[in-house]
Amino acid sequence: MEKLKNLPFEDLGFAKVDHHRTIRKGHPEVIYCGGKTLEEIESIVEKMIEKKSNVILTRVDKQIYKRVKSVSSKAEYHERAGIVLIEMEKVKKSRSKLLVVSAGTSDINVAEEAALTAEVMGTTTERLYDVGVAGIHRLFLNKSKLDEANVIIVVAGMEGALPSVVGGLVDKPVIAVPTSVGYGVNFEGVAPLLTMLNSCASGIGVVNIDNGFGAGYLASTIIRQIEKAGEKK
Amino acid sequence: MEKLKNLPFEDLGFAKVDHHRTIRKGHPEVIYCGGKTLEEIESIVEKMIEKKSNVILTRVDKQIYKRVKSVSSKAEYHERAGIVLIEMEKVKKSRSKLLVVSAGTSDINVAEEAALTAEVMGTTTERLYDVGVAGIHRLFLNKSKLDEANVIIVVAGMEGALPSVVGGLVDKPVIAVPTSVGYGVNFEGVAPLLTMLNSCASGIGVVNIDNGFGAGYLASTIIRQIEKAGEKK
Amino acid sequence: MEKLKNLPFEDLGFAKVDHHRTIRKGHPEVIYCGGKTLEEIESIVEKMIEKKSNVILTRVDKQIYKRVKSVSSKAEYHERAGIVLIEMEKVKKSRSKLLVVSAGTSDINVAEEAALTAEVMGTTTERLYDVGVAGIHRLFLNKSKLDEANVIIVVAGMEGALPSVVGGLVDKPVIAVPTSVGYGVNFEGVAPLLTMLNSCASGIGVVNIDNGFGAGYLASTIIRQIEKAGEKK
Amino acid sequence: MEKLKNLPFEDLGFAKVDHHRTIRKGHPEVIYCGGKTLEEIESIVEKMIEKKSNVILTRVDKQIYKRVKSVSSKAEYHERAGIVLIEMEKVKKSRSKLLVVSAGTSDINVAEEAALTAEVMGTTTERLYDVGVAGIHRLFLNKSKLDEANVIIVVAGMEGALPSVVGGLVDKPVIAVPTSVGYGVNFEGVAPLLTMLNSCASGIGVVNIDNGFGAGYLASTIIRQIEKAGEKK
Amino acid sequence: MEKLKNLPFEDLGFAKVDHHRTIRKGHPEVIYCGGKTLEEIESIVEKMIEKKSNVILTRVDKQIYKRVKSVSSKAEYHERAGIVLIEMEKVKKSRSKLLVVSAGTSDINVAEEAALTAEVMGTTTERLYDVGVAGIHRLFLNKSKLDEANVIIVVAGMEGALPSVVGGLVDKPVIAVPTSVGYGVNFEGVAPLLTMLNSCASGIGVVNIDNGFGAGYLASTIIRQIEKAGEKK
Amino acid sequence: MEKLKNLPFEDLGFAKVDHHRTIRKGHPEVIYCGGKTLEEIESIVEKMIEKKSNVILTRVDKQIYKRVKSVSSKAEYHERAGIVLIEMEKVKKSRSKLLVVSAGTSDINVAEEAALTAEVMGTTTERLYDVGVAGIHRLFLNKSKLDEANVIIVVAGMEGALPSVVGGLVDKPVIAVPTSVGYGVNFEGVAPLLTMLNSCASGIGVVNIDNGFGAGYLASTIIRQIEKAGEKK
Amino acid sequence: MEKLKNLPFEDLGFAKVDHHRTIRKGHPEVIYCGGKTLEEIESIVEKMIEKKSNVILTRVDKQIYKRVKSVSSKAEYHERAGIVLIEMEKVKKSRSKLLVVSAGTSDINVAEEAALTAEVMGTTTERLYDVGVAGIHRLFLNKSKLDEANVIIVVAGMEGALPSVVGGLVDKPVIAVPTSVGYGVNFEGVAPLLTMLNSCASGIGVVNIDNGFGAGYLASTIIRQIEKAGEKK
Amino acid sequence: MEKLKNLPFEDLGFAKVDHHRTIRKGHPEVIYCGGKTLEEIESIVEKMIEKKSNVILTRVDKQIYKRVKSVSSKAEYHERAGIVLIEMEKVKKSRSKLLVVSAGTSDINVAEEAALTAEVMGTTTERLYDVGVAGIHRLFLNKSKLDEANVIIVVAGMEGALPSVVGGLVDKPVIAVPTSVGYGVNFEGVAPLLTMLNSCASGIGVVNIDNGFGAGYLASTIIRQIEKAGEKK
Repeated sequence: MEKLKNLPFEDLGFAKVDHHRTIRKGHPEVIYCGGKTLEEIESIVEKMIEKKSNVILTRVDKQIYKRVKSVSSKAEYHERAGIVLIEMEKVKKSRSKLLVVSAGTSDINVAEEAALTAEVMGTTTERLYDVGVAGIHRLFLNKSKLDEANVIIVVAGMEGALPSVVGGLVDKPVIAVPTSVGYGVNFEGVAPLLTMLNSCASGIGVVNIDNGFGAGYLASTIIRQIEKAGEKK
Repeated sequence: MEKLKNLPFEDLGFAKVDHHRTIRKGHPEVIYCGGKTLEEIESIVEKMIEKKSNVILTRVDKQIYKRVKSVSSKAEYHERAGIVLIEMEKVKKSRSKLLVVSAGTSDINVAEEAALTAEVMGTTTERLYDVGVAGIHRLFLNKSKLDEANVIIVVAGMEGALPSVVGGLVDKPVIAVPTSVGYGVNFEGVAPLLTMLNSCASGIGVVNIDNGFGAGYLASTIIRQIEKAGEKK
Repeated sequence: MEKLKNLPFEDLGFAKVDHHRTIRKGHPEVIYCGGKTLEEIESIVEKMIEKKSNVILTRVDKQIYKRVKSVSSKAEYHERAGIVLIEMEKVKKSRSKLLVVSAGTSDINVAEEAALTAEVMGTTTERLYDVGVAGIHRLFLNKSKLDEANVIIVVAGMEGALPSVVGGLVDKPVIAVPTSVGYGVNFEGVAPLLTMLNSCASGIGVVNIDNGFGAGYLASTIIRQIEKAGEKK
Repeated sequence: MEKLKNLPFEDLGFAKVDHHRTIRKGHPEVIYCGGKTLEEIESIVEKMIEKKSNVILTRVDKQIYKRVKSVSSKAEYHERAGIVLIEMEKVKKSRSKLLVVSAGTSDINVAEEAALTAEVMGTTTERLYDVGVAGIHRLFLNKSKLDEANVIIVVAGMEGALPSVVGGLVDKPVIAVPTSVGYGVNFEGVAPLLTMLNSCASGIGVVNIDNGFGAGYLASTIIRQIEKAGEKK
Repeated sequence: MEKLKNLPFEDLGFAKVDHHRTIRKGHPEVIYCGGKTLEEIESIVEKMIEKKSNVILTRVDKQIYKRVKSVSSKAEYHERAGIVLIEMEKVKKSRSKLLVVSAGTSDINVAEEAALTAEVMGTTTERLYDVGVAGIHRLFLNKSKLDEANVIIVVAGMEGALPSVVGGLVDKPVIAVPTSVGYGVNFEGVAPLLTMLNSCASGIGVVNIDNGFGAGYLASTIIRQIEKAGEKK
Repeated sequence: MEKLKNLPFEDLGFAKVDHHRTIRKGHPEVIYCGGKTLEEIESIVEKMIEKKSNVILTRVDKQIYKRVKSVSSKAEYHERAGIVLIEMEKVKKSRSKLLVVSAGTSDINVAEEAALTAEVMGTTTERLYDVGVAGIHRLFLNKSKLDEANVIIVVAGMEGALPSVVGGLVDKPVIAVPTSVGYGVNFEGVAPLLTMLNSCASGIGVVNIDNGFGAGYLASTIIRQIEKAGEKK
Repeated sequence: MEKLKNLPFEDLGFAKVDHHRTIRKGHPEVIYCGGKTLEEIESIVEKMIEKKSNVILTRVDKQIYKRVKSVSSKAEYHERAGIVLIEMEKVKKSRSKLLVVSAGTSDINVAEEAALTAEVMGTTTERLYDVGVAGIHRLFLNKSKLDEANVIIVVAGMEGALPSVVGGLVDKPVIAVPTSVGYGVNFEGVAPLLTMLNSCASGIGVVNIDNGFGAGYLASTIIRQIEKAGEKK
Repeated sequence: MEKLKNLPFEDLGFAKVDHHRTIRKGHPEVIYCGGKTLEEIESIVEKMIEKKSNVILTRVDKQIYKRVKSVSSKAEYHERAGIVLIEMEKVKKSRSKLLVVSAGTSDINVAEEAALTAEVMGTTTERLYDVGVAGIHRLFLNKSKLDEANVIIVVAGMEGALPSVVGGLVDKPVIAVPTSVGYGVNFEGVAPLLTMLNSCASGIGVVNIDNGFGAGYLASTIIRQIEKAGEKK
């Protein structure tokens, strides 16, 4: 504990690796790979696995994956989600449940980023994909899944109307993730983002376009609060 | 007919009143009052009622209404819709039907603009108000109204998701009208407009924000084509 | 009918193929290929042709076409429109007519997407290309084509003024499609989209930029209403 | 229960009052007053208090308040927040806690809308105001308040940087509310909204500009999940 | 001439009145009144009429007019255009001609600002109002006016399509002025501005929204070049 | 002349080649190559050179050039401007003069597009490059060139301030062309476009971003009016 | 000093008045009045003058001024700048100099906000107004003022080109302030802001639209660094 | 000196190389390589090194570097910053200090552009990287570096909140540089730019997105003023 105070992070010059944070938060280390060089990513991963932390890397392409794999053989690539997981120690699963819903097949990339993030943080996660509003009976036929979850993430591109419908059906925290799926005045996800922020269904929190990671993370902090309440009693 | 060719419009200097158009189109005369002076509106109305045309004035406030009323005692003010109708001769009602749907109570202004426009053009029109997506069972309990209509206008502000849901339930022309109801990143109707243009439900035509008139007009040209087909046979 | 209720769609995990919809709507199956993997497209097509549905795939490039062709030899590629059609049974042609008008040569891609979509839905379709407003006599010399149609689709990029002019000449439903043809403050189709939404000619419904499919679909639902009225009598 | 099925809402023509929803959700009735006439608000309130529901009205000015007060003497006006509460029966307070943080004095309107909404939904709520990032020691000196809360709402205008700093200090759900406080390129709250959506601190859900109500509502659904977990055990 | 060099402008502290400019350019003095106080406008006008310059004031409301009138009894108010002219000496009229065309009645404000500006600069000016594209035969019946002009200004709000059509009919300089007439996605004139900048008709120069003054000024500099060429020969 | 009436354009299906226009306008044929296929360009060029028209093609890359060269050996490629000229008959040069000014070296592409367009239309054209406002003495040392011209085109990217300065120095028509040179909030030319439209110097007409062609064309129609006035006398 | 640590600010509930900051920074207390109630402003001012701090209030209208005057008779109102100064102790003037330049008469509001802010912070300040780029000789005739200053603030609305020209003439820190003076695509100051950020003259720092206060403050921190260097030696 | 007057720049046709400027400003020659051809860059460099000027080239890729190296063997490439330096004579280092701070590892490109620019202009520069607001203790542990600097540049992408925090901690000129690091509604740097312009911390000047060069240049002009004051005494 004393050492922690004196050395809250390791300074690599180009990056300050913050183990303090991991310990404080009890979460895996996270590396957002956008804009970092291969060398930088490699160095950061090396420092992290020394400490036996679990690691999640986002926005990963094949080239980055190969470099990470060369450092840690435990690196596991989820290509569609652009995520690499390095699980140094087993995570305990939560009793409360997260449901990840996607509007279309093309939104699955982002939905998987959310689901995998939540899982590596110990959240029990179920998936319900391709239930968009244009064929809304597909959602209604899966109403029981909505009822069983404690938190729901809804991922949608195009016009992004699904979170409003889900938010109207349940009485739970709903996290909405707009995706950049669409064309024309979709403006690479701005249209569904606006839809979600303007939702007339109450109780919806929104994250950045394609930010499956952020949604999975937020859902997991909620789940953690629920778990703690369950444990205390 | 000869005279028509030689005199396709009357020139008031500031305006060219186009009776030719009314005859050609078989529709009421339309005056968009935005940006016109009281004097100009008065002069145009005078020319029109001389020809016994039905007249519809849009974007009308109380002051304009008073001026028009002083010219024609038949002027009838629909305050919430901002419309004045001058019915010089009775319009025949269509057998095919239009349904005007609104998402919220606050969208009724625009929905009424659409419904009144359609009615003055001879379209039989039904209304279904306050059935937005956040309480979607209200829409489903009125499914039969959707089934009976030939054309459906859907008016929605906030996130504007209702046309997508309606479009997924029916196999008919759907005309979507975004309204400026909302706040923040609603951007005075831009958000629902984008939602409607990006709709993953096919078969939706969109008009400008708060343009109830345009929607009612478009619906009526469709109804007219249907009526003509019915008559021919 | 009973089975339909119990099995409204087939669940492929990443997609829920909705035959219910095809039966209910009497339309071809539609696959929007943007953001779907080759494997997903292949699986969906396989399920669809099992049911003998006609299929239309949009946003198709050569690679996708090859994959689809390997599943169904009936697949027919319209390269300029980025469309593949799989016609499992012959479609009956409508008596009412659609006219597809384009402003410039560069807008033909989108115009063809609209025309082909309408045709596969049974709509009799004529084409009138390269009649933009900068040489407006070319349009006027084809006035008779406008007069013969029941519904008109107008496709235009650059400043997108053509639908306003067409809308002023006829008394019929006009569907306007902005294209991303242009540069600078065209903003990839936003400029013509705004032009069309602001049109001072009444009776114009607008679809998303480059959304030829949506326009063809909407036109066909209108045509279908007209046909039904003709049949009933 | 049977009656509920048959009468899920009362139809006032311009509005469909949805008691079903209140019962299902266990929340107060909510009326968003933007764009509704005084008459409509009065009628809706009358229907609601007949059922002994608690009611919360948002976007209320003095004129609306007077009208509501004339219908229910229990109506209580919170002027700065633009909220009227009608408490027909006492709400039970939660054991878990919400903390509402504001960056500046000018953001208090929105912060109060959030806090009052949460309180009427039974959430125990604490306030911490005027601790913006330009004098960040004011936040740090109140670190213990952050530690005691289960959920934190952070309200900020201007550049909206406070949620990022708070999100970096805690391991809990953070809900960020941008306000329209600012000038120039603040764009009436768009700037802080973007800041919050782009936050490099994970675990932040964002709501629309000035949407204190939405934040309070979302926080309360989270608190409710926590409470239920505590009760079950 | 010597004095001019030594005293190129008079310094009022808050303004530097630039007679040098008037002499050099041979134009009237121009005062843009937006954001200036009554006192400042009065002082500037006083300095100008001392030098016997003709003066044109733009963006003038009644209050400003009264103040100017109190300084110079020659001040003449054109209310619709928001212009005050002070003609200290008679202007000689050009032989070449300017035609000012407006699309709608509501655009006349701006069209008059253009026409009056041109006239005070000595340009012979004709007007042709309310000939927008939705009734394009009104324009064609005035084709001879287009043929007689040397320069054409086209003023249009809503979708702003008229300059494209005019530009396609003539082989002359066309100056396009978008107006803020419209609603919804007109964005107070941005839509017609974009239309004009994207025009597929060549030979069109565009000025700022509602900038009738700028268009009249530019047209007059062109007319002046033409006049000079005529004189030289 | 009779034939012209009966055959105002040749119909290639995908394009309507409009010789009528060339004759009427006395200008070269113009082909905007953006979005056209090689086949289409080839066919259009073939039709045009049959009639001995001069031709200017814009937005031409090397591949297009090769195809055009294979049709007409007279095709001459100006690579930096992306222009191909086919001069079938010699153009007579004007006595009045155009000056094309560029702010930076990187704006030369667009400046050359303007200059070449003007020259092929018979306009005598001079160039003055790299005289941007950050080193404004370079402009002042070339003041005589500004004085000799009848019309001035000013091409500028980055902040686009040069036309304002030039407009303040001369009493002539100034045509401003924004370029997409810049980065960040230049927004690919939107920033200089706004600068030019907001210019406090009067008498400036603006064209679309990178639209050197439009500026050269507009300048030439002005020059033509001047020439005609000179000839008449 | 001990007390300072324990009581870094006084907590008024709605505001945390931060004397710590004033002492640390050696600057006057600043109150941004936008969005604060009269009561809040009064309370904050009272706390501040107790400590004998100099106070500057920005965005002040007459009503606020009266309230402040009732608390402190030393309050001095600069109406055009919307500023109230309360000088509790005399400020020492700097030897280095700031020059505040404005492009137009309408920009003086903001220029005065900058100049007054700088002066209350001890900065010796000179003014040079109405020297915009459309009459650039007015600037050049005041070149000596540019040469004498250590720091220059340039305030400009409309197209905002003046900072680029000034930045090209001097080798000193230039701070650019866009104003909301203009119309149409000025977008209330966005156009000049973009111009300034894109300036091809190096060494320009930009502040928010109409933020004269921020510019005056930044200039003063620079002047203070210069003064300190002068004192040390 | 005489020659300087007569020949203030060398005219290369496509560029006017301005040695006058270098002498006047005492700075290195600067070449912004965006949009220039290899030939142009080569010619400009040749002219510059003839005069023994130090040269800094920005926006340099490998291909440009090779060409420059072939002209001057002293060319030194800083790949991450995209900068080439040609140091013809040694620069004297300042006594006052600049600190360059970056929020994240991905912002280092731009931070290095700023630092290198400052160094070639003689500014003593220190670096502090990866201290963003989500882990704000990393900044606080380096507080002494902030205290030692005379001027601070803060570089940040994502939400860009770091300059506000730094600005609240110090009493010095702060220059903020937004970077295009981020995704979704980051809009390639627009979000952090807005954050910085809206900062509630006073005394912050902002430059264009990714404009490390501009920040380094501005910082150096400030440092130069400080140095001169130190020297004079």
